[in-house]
Amino acid sequence: MSKPSIPKGTRDFSAGEMLGRDYIFDTIRQIFRLYGYKPIETPAMENLTTLLGKYGDEGDRLIFRILDSGDFLSEIGDDELAGRDLNRLSLKMCGKGLRYDLTVPFARYVVQHRNEIVFPFRRYQIQPVWRADRPQKGRYREFFQCDADIIGSDSLLNEYELIRITDDIFKRLGIAAGIKINNRKVLAGLAAYIGEADRIIDITVAIDKMDKTGIESVKEELRSKGIPDFAIGKLEPVLNLKGDTASKLKKLESIVAGNETAMNGVKELRTLFDLLEPARLVSELEFDLTLARGLNYYTGAIIEVKAKDMAIGSIAGGGRYDNLTGVFGMEGVSGVGISFGADRIYDVMMHLNLFGEISSSATRVLILNFGEEETAYALRLSDLLKNRNISSEIYPDPVKIRKQMSYADSNRIPFVVLAGEEEIRNNEVTVKVMETGEQIRMTLNELDLFAANNLKMTN
Amino acid sequence: MSKPSIPKGTRDFSAGEMLGRDYIFDTIRQIFRLYGYKPIETPAMENLTTLLGKYGDEGDRLIFRILDSGDFLSEIGDDELAGRDLNRLSLKMCGKGLRYDLTVPFARYVVQHRNEIVFPFRRYQIQPVWRADRPQKGRYREFFQCDADIIGSDSLLNEYELIRITDDIFKRLGIAAGIKINNRKVLAGLAAYIGEADRIIDITVAIDKMDKTGIESVKEELRSKGIPDFAIGKLEPVLNLKGDTASKLKKLESIVAGNETAMNGVKELRTLFDLLEPARLVSELEFDLTLARGLNYYTGAIIEVKAKDMAIGSIAGGGRYDNLTGVFGMEGVSGVGISFGADRIYDVMMHLNLFGEISSSATRVLILNFGEEETAYALRLSDLLKNRNISSEIYPDPVKIRKQMSYADSNRIPFVVLAGEEEIRNNEVTVKVMETGEQIRMTLNELDLFAANNLKMTN
Repeated sequence: MSKPSIPKGTRDFSAGEMLGRDYIFDTIRQIFRLYGYKPIETPAMENLTTLLGKYGDEGDRLIFRILDSGDFLSEIGDDELAGRDLNRLSLKMCGKGLRYDLTVPFARYVVQHRNEIVFPFRRYQIQPVWRADRPQKGRYREFFQCDADIIGSDSLLNEYELIRITDDIFKRLGIAAGIKINNRKVLAGLAAYIGEADRIIDITVAIDKMDKTGIESVKEELRSKGIPDFAIGKLEPVLNLKGDTASKLKKLESIVAGNETAMNGVKELRTLFDLLEPARLVSELEFDLTLARGLNYYTGAIIEVKAKDMAIGSIAGGGRYDNLTGVFGMEGVSGVGISFGADRIYDVMMHLNLFGEISSSATRVLILNFGEEETAYALRLSDLLKNRNISSEIYPDPVKIRKQMSYADSNRIPFVVLAGEEEIRNNEVTVKVMETGEQIRMTLNELDLFAANNLKMTN
Repeated sequence: MSKPSIPKGTRDFSAGEMLGRDYIFDTIRQIFRLYGYKPIETPAMENLTTLLGKYGDEGDRLIFRILDSGDFLSEIGDDELAGRDLNRLSLKMCGKGLRYDLTVPFARYVVQHRNEIVFPFRRYQIQPVWRADRPQKGRYREFFQCDADIIGSDSLLNEYELIRITDDIFKRLGIAAGIKINNRKVLAGLAAYIGEADRIIDITVAIDKMDKTGIESVKEELRSKGIPDFAIGKLEPVLNLKGDTASKLKKLESIVAGNETAMNGVKELRTLFDLLEPARLVSELEFDLTLARGLNYYTGAIIEVKAKDMAIGSIAGGGRYDNLTGVFGMEGVSGVGISFGADRIYDVMMHLNLFGEISSSATRVLILNFGEEETAYALRLSDLLKNRNISSEIYPDPVKIRKQMSYADSNRIPFVVLAGEEEIRNNEVTVKVMETGEQIRMTLNELDLFAANNLKMTN
């Protein structure tokens, strides 16, 4: 029989990885809660009608579809079946799909639960998403998103708050982060300023690539999209803006002074940076006009976060959307949100060795098994330790002590308790400190004290 | 546009439910860790070859299958397609399925990672599973299992440990639990004793229903399966065993004295109950000969847990299997495990009001928004509280105070901080205690102290 395997692009997580991942999730969750965000969860499966058409044609192709239970061909006639129109057939065979992100399910949730929700509504959601993307380094078909959104409020205090959250999270995780901020209104205003207001999507998609491909290639793309050289020339000095945030904003203001949308965007950016100024972020904060994030639904702030000490793409990103729920028939709900990519954050922390020494085990004490006669005593010791909330194990089988010690070693369990015939007769134990090899004989009372003082769980 | 919805049998979890669910998951996780179990996670999608044939024909039908990306018809000829053999077609169109439980993925994991694993291996796994079951009260198409297993050891200390874990978990959750224990060897021995050794599955399936349908209906089922009346008559006194565990074991022993398998089962039960005796469980512990749990893979202990104060089916269950990984080509790995059903546990705790008052929000303090002039001061207050790890929010918009207070009310936020023009001038705040209506004027230093002493987070 061949060795079993898992679908490409998916992963198993073993104990060592899980402890690191749980640490990341716990940290993010704690900060989200500190800021008053409330947890929700939505089903892994959504109706396909909820998912389709929300992520563009490419997104639709990347949604995993679930075959209907029962007769999945019942609605398909013979001719239609023979026609092999894959898209059409799959729509009739599959009513459900796996969620592609947390944003669309959240929008669906808000509309469905609108009468229970008190606005403004801060929610967080930490769940896996699935995409039938081509797997490659750092890109998986199953990965976790950690989203915080606040909806039903236009205030820029919300953008401020999300950036504080971002800074708090990466500070606590020990990741040096660079936070880039832009505003969609500035991009829209620029498109209008160069006389191509209706080409904002093409222009945005192109300049989003500034970082990756450089200005010449962006110009090339704009040309290929039919943007005239005159307009591209007008755009170029704007793309080349240099200096700190304040001076960039100032120069930009003078360039786009005549365009109201752009000026509103500049004003929002200024307010946001002013709010953030006294907060003394640990992260590097920067206004980046080329930041567009390809996504079509942001209407105000655009936020992207990268790790400064590792090249791995963005580790968080978000922005403001003025009409998240419109697609589900509920108009006028403005919101702003940010999404943290737990899998990339994990990769960064591993790469930079930020977890310190992660043991694959939380166990602090192994109690050796000397055989049936000694079992009752070992169970008492186990109870004593567990009453002190010390994670401990009894080796289940009375095998050679050498083998049991090697188990403690392999699992990096720091203390071993030995209680053989002699210890039991004296109501004592021997504690072996694995790191030093030191052996300490003590009474049960002393063990209880030792446990309380020296054996605390690390997590 | 019609109101959006979610697939039948699935659920959204809102904040109030999430806090309760997280409490359950955290409790179970803490106890698992206390006993040295290590976390793993496996992908939601497994290869269909991993899943199929492991849960019987009915189980195979209940597995959600995922349509292959790209041309899912490429391996299907025209005639084959026209033949509409659903099972055959779905196997060619779908290479992956959603996991049905955590046991088979765990077995697959063990075989795939056998060279990294140190045996005996204690693992826990808390993840959702999916079944295309007909949804009904208490039965969902997406639900969470919380599994703890230890493999690579035959010792009954492991069964002992899992029952201690069960008792600890339900004690901490406040659920009065009844733990029933049986042993597959006793069942196998009984089948042999009545002369129907090869009918053990039929017999087990039938007597599994004793609790639900009563002895007459069990006899009827046995008869319909072709078990002769003579054998049924021999079985009847065994099914009717009464009394406490010790006396039931004793009577049983005298009945099946000639059968070695049954005697081994009785001996295992006796050892387990002897181990458990000094542990003084809070849960009610009982030997139940009729407990069979329908599952075909248990070979030793069988465990089932019910809530004593609510009729809702089992809330946990498990047992020993001697050959978990054999189906994946790795023989001779014995293990024992238990699975907690988080969704039913939640239902029990809600029904019995065991959560106490769950707020839909973890937020302790709402800082009112008096407008742009007062914002900087409000942000300082927010920082002061967050530095004390007090979960707080600023109301994002400067709307009417009445509306902001109503927001605090609806979200059951216990404290509101007001800092208007006058407070700011004096470097003070007013704290309103929502429950009593009391308003306390204090300096920022006093607020810091008040926060440290009176505002601690509840979770």
